[in-house]
Amino acid sequence: MFETAELGRKISKEDYKAQEPELRMQLLEVQEDLKHASFPVIILIGGVDGAGKGETVNLLHEWMDPRYLEAHAFGTPSDEERERPEAWRFWRVLPPKGRIGIFFGSWYTHPIIDCVFGRTDEAELDSSLIAINKFEKELVDDGALIIKFWFHLSKKSQEKRLNLLSKNPKTAWRVTKQDWKHFKIYDTFRRISERALRTTSTGEAPWTIVEGEDERYRSITVGKHILESIAKHVAEKKNSKPVEKPKKTKPQEEALTLLDTLDLSQTLSEEKYKTQLEKYQGKFNLLYRKAKAKGFSAILVFEGWDAAGKGGIIRRITPAMDARDYQIIPIAAPTEEERAQHYLWRFWRHLPRAGRVTIFDRSWYGRVLVERVEGFAKEEEWKRAFNEIVNFEEQLNKHGILLLKFWVHIDKDEQMRRFELRQKTSYKHYKITDEDFRNRERWNDYEIAANEMIERTGTEFAPWHLIEANDKKFARIKTLKIFYDSLKRMID
Amino acid sequence: MFETAELGRKISKEDYKAQEPELRMQLLEVQEDLKHASFPVIILIGGVDGAGKGETVNLLHEWMDPRYLEAHAFGTPSDEERERPEAWRFWRVLPPKGRIGIFFGSWYTHPIIDCVFGRTDEAELDSSLIAINKFEKELVDDGALIIKFWFHLSKKSQEKRLNLLSKNPKTAWRVTKQDWKHFKIYDTFRRISERALRTTSTGEAPWTIVEGEDERYRSITVGKHILESIAKHVAEKKNSKPVEKPKKTKPQEEALTLLDTLDLSQTLSEEKYKTQLEKYQGKFNLLYRKAKAKGFSAILVFEGWDAAGKGGIIRRITPAMDARDYQIIPIAAPTEEERAQHYLWRFWRHLPRAGRVTIFDRSWYGRVLVERVEGFAKEEEWKRAFNEIVNFEEQLNKHGILLLKFWVHIDKDEQMRRFELRQKTSYKHYKITDEDFRNRERWNDYEIAANEMIERTGTEFAPWHLIEANDKKFARIKTLKIFYDSLKRMID
Repeated sequence: MFETAELGRKISKEDYKAQEPELRMQLLEVQEDLKHASFPVIILIGGVDGAGKGETVNLLHEWMDPRYLEAHAFGTPSDEERERPEAWRFWRVLPPKGRIGIFFGSWYTHPIIDCVFGRTDEAELDSSLIAINKFEKELVDDGALIIKFWFHLSKKSQEKRLNLLSKNPKTAWRVTKQDWKHFKIYDTFRRISERALRTTSTGEAPWTIVEGEDERYRSITVGKHILESIAKHVAEKKNSKPVEKPKKTKPQEEALTLLDTLDLSQTLSEEKYKTQLEKYQGKFNLLYRKAKAKGFSAILVFEGWDAAGKGGIIRRITPAMDARDYQIIPIAAPTEEERAQHYLWRFWRHLPRAGRVTIFDRSWYGRVLVERVEGFAKEEEWKRAFNEIVNFEEQLNKHGILLLKFWVHIDKDEQMRRFELRQKTSYKHYKITDEDFRNRERWNDYEIAANEMIERTGTEFAPWHLIEANDKKFARIKTLKIFYDSLKRMID
Repeated sequence: MFETAELGRKISKEDYKAQEPELRMQLLEVQEDLKHASFPVIILIGGVDGAGKGETVNLLHEWMDPRYLEAHAFGTPSDEERERPEAWRFWRVLPPKGRIGIFFGSWYTHPIIDCVFGRTDEAELDSSLIAINKFEKELVDDGALIIKFWFHLSKKSQEKRLNLLSKNPKTAWRVTKQDWKHFKIYDTFRRISERALRTTSTGEAPWTIVEGEDERYRSITVGKHILESIAKHVAEKKNSKPVEKPKKTKPQEEALTLLDTLDLSQTLSEEKYKTQLEKYQGKFNLLYRKAKAKGFSAILVFEGWDAAGKGGIIRRITPAMDARDYQIIPIAAPTEEERAQHYLWRFWRHLPRAGRVTIFDRSWYGRVLVERVEGFAKEEEWKRAFNEIVNFEEQLNKHGILLLKFWVHIDKDEQMRRFELRQKTSYKHYKITDEDFRNRERWNDYEIAANEMIERTGTEFAPWHLIEANDKKFARIKTLKIFYDSLKRMID
């Protein structure tokens, strides 16, 4: 695989001088086009030491408009990063639409290096690579252009280069002990890298191997490849169609769904409610302090019909915790910075640190609920979201985060009753808008969407908890119990 | 000071029921007004344990529209937080305009607690409090409304409350060992808190002491105070005038400024440049690795005329560092999220972690340069910015960050020569726009602004370095030397 990058390709000074100005101008032009396009460009820079990675990052800053370029490098993760799933540190710096992010070192570094130094075996490497493929596919599906460069040097060139730099007193500083250490494991590094590149050279994000020996050749190659890739992507994206609002589906009387099977007549007396609430809040408080001490974190997701009582449930859980330890994230319209990113970005942003709890009042499931029903997302977008969401939640689970998802369920009559009540209660007015009534007209569509969501995203590690909520008191206690029991199981 | 909050004030159940619905409705209405106003509301919640702080945070979530409300609590700082100046963790979560941020625990917690436990003396407390006053004044000057609540309980009530909760098996969980520990130091806590509150009850951000014993009294008091404060602030802000673009000042031939005294004829031969560049990059590389190992971080700020060669200088510094260790932040138009914050927020956002270097290509000095000259900032805004900036830089310095500020200087003729060159060079076209020529017409105003900036923000701990840059080579070497020498002095 690397043989083609050991051919000793060169570009003469004259050729370089002839090509460079035109290339730079075109790169700037294509960057201008990109600004008005609605996708980000992610450039990964990996490869052998001394093959010109750093120099290329510098060069791109020189050639292009640096205001629309961000370079990120990844050293040892901070504790804020270690306390979240591995991918968090990459998500937090993904470039927004219209911009270029250069990742100097990336999600490939750790899997490859760990395997080279024997900290993981090849099966573990493969499983990391599969996760990477999924991640990149999600970004590409969302419109991102991913350009992956692997800078290569043959063993001979590598040695020659290190010796040359070391001998000259003026340049000796450029060679570190680590460079020699890495040189010693050249063969292993080459073998493992090849395996990684093979597995992850996908149709949507292939690797480009760059022969690193000749600076001029390398620079022109990288520049041209970036230019062509962006230009092609801009052209392709121009032809994408606008979304149409989906038509209402008619109610299908017969189709019995999972939600239909819920017994909404379950209630709890005022007295029993009060006793149980105090009891479970107390038990829960003791338990959560243990969990906190052990560094467990939890994410609660609340979805459900308008007026189902999500807020009321949340307010019965939080008093059992110290306000320092939880954060409620109500999901409304995204901000400009959020709109310029993958739809999952705004949720990655709010993942809790170790020992903390994040409560999402509505969540990423908006993608397959409101965005699907109202046509804010294209059909292919919400259809692939099921897998993307499961993949996301799998990462939370793998990191040891307790994820609890609640669907708070009421029937259509109960909703109307509550809407009317809200209209009568002065301070609940704000909670009721024309939109709520419009959404009600699409009850049937939302029901279909909710059922499919529960079916397709209810996994063993993150099942949906269906909460019968025609009786608010019953719903609150049931939810609190589930949180308590799940946390207990986790700790034990 | 606290005596007035020990009067045993109560509100009866009936009164509460009569007042609550109206208050809630008004709070929602005022929140609606706030959404369209261009200022944030910062609510600080501090005080004695058990006086209802957490309950009040929960209540406000219930009463108001939680989508425009963010609560933040502050435990032990993370390493990302510890590696920046103390105020960083607060800056990073300041609410944007139109929203309410509730700070449960705040910048008061550490100064007070440290003093209570004898880790600092009262002089140190005072100096922290003065810093807090400055910080709050900056936020208020920027339009923020700061509402500070101190929840109080008398020693007797405190004891009664803890005993009562402990005796009941159902509520015993609410009392922790820490609660009793805090109770033991009640008197010290009271004395220190009073000192803190006295010093920081300023005209722009006074404290409101809330008697915490009676839940109904406390809730209504807090709710009403928030309501009135926001309503008043909204009304006041409506009368603010739009900014007018300042008129051009005529060149004053005689006035000799600091910048005029620079000897722009200084040059460096190509040969000497090459030798020195390699030499200083090498020396610098060794030095910066030492600095990195010791956890030093640095911030470089580049300001100067259009086409002065700031980018070229930056590109001669970065090759001497590992791309993992530095970040270039080019300052262009702020994003929506940035515009919704204090103008310094976007710079706080990018402060480097320990061992890293952040290079600002233009910076917070835009406030007193382009924003002043073009009238983007009001006169009172840029005038007070001098102090705000010095205060900001003082915090960087106090934290041990090396801050270097460079003014890259060329004369008007040299600028024209470079503009013309850019127009001729295809790939430099993008660097030259009509705006550049328009800015040139205001050369004189920029010169006045730059001189005043250098005079008023050149401090002992962060002086301006004036770089004569008519000869690019000279400018590059001079800057690199300054960086090297300053870092060396710091390490030694």
